[in-house]
Amino acid sequence: MKIEFWSIGKQHDPSIREAIEEYTSRIKKYATVKWEIISVSKNANALSEIDQKKSEAKLILERMDRDTVLVALDEYGKEMSSINLATFLTQKADMGTKKLVFLIGGAFGIDQSILDKAKHKWSLSKLTFPHQLVRLILAEQIYRAFSITKNEKYHHQ
Amino acid sequence: MKIEFWSIGKQHDPSIREAIEEYTSRIKKYATVKWEIISVSKNANALSEIDQKKSEAKLILERMDRDTVLVALDEYGKEMSSINLATFLTQKADMGTKKLVFLIGGAFGIDQSILDKAKHKWSLSKLTFPHQLVRLILAEQIYRAFSITKNEKYHHQ
Repeated sequence: MKIEFWSIGKQHDPSIREAIEEYTSRIKKYATVKWEIISVSKNANALSEIDQKKSEAKLILERMDRDTVLVALDEYGKEMSSINLATFLTQKADMGTKKLVFLIGGAFGIDQSILDKAKHKWSLSKLTFPHQLVRLILAEQIYRAFSITKNEKYHHQ
Repeated sequence: MKIEFWSIGKQHDPSIREAIEEYTSRIKKYATVKWEIISVSKNANALSEIDQKKSEAKLILERMDRDTVLVALDEYGKEMSSINLATFLTQKADMGTKKLVFLIGGAFGIDQSILDKAKHKWSLSKLTFPHQLVRLILAEQIYRAFSITKNEKYHHQ
């Protein structure tokens, strides 16, 4: 099962890029993984919130194929513990999922048309995090989840 | 009201130190804030889990004074939204709190004797985060909470 992280916006923030890359690289021990940074057009700020979300939705749709199982990170999604996440990954792999995509939305969240296509909606926390920090949390949690599955020491540290 | 972050363990991890320091520095716009990194003795790893927590508890107790209102970050604590956290900070300030201390425990969590002294127990998320990442999340959330209180743009970005 391939893991992909799709994130609307800019490249990783330099202040945490190293940490994001470190966890992403550790995931490679367990699975093929890659980041897809979906950059929005430079005049996006001139668009209304609705139009901005719609134009992001178009970019996301273009990237979806038959193999994609989409997990949207969404504040109204279901919360999971790290153990739940590990179980979730195992179940997805067991079901023959080819490409599991975790999607971090843009400044205004994810367009409803994409949320409707997402197989799962996941809320990291009741807290609101900046998108860049969500990237770091996501990479760390997926690494942690694999380490739980493989019963490695990391989760117990 | 002074804000202090107490954290058991090593100095900030170089890969996220800049980001922790950036948010800490932004908090200074609203409140006096400082980190207290409480380092454990080098032979701590030789101690049992219980003894390690007890020796950490001693170091924490030494630092507590009459002004300290302790918020323990604890997986069994109460979850808050960022808005709840903003309200919480305002209430604490309104009640005349002099020093609000957020405590991040050591590798095995926080000793029960300290949890008993904590006025509040706060769980960031159902997810388990590494201690270093908890520091970054904490600094960002306190900054966000102040920005919510002051109705600044940050939270809506």
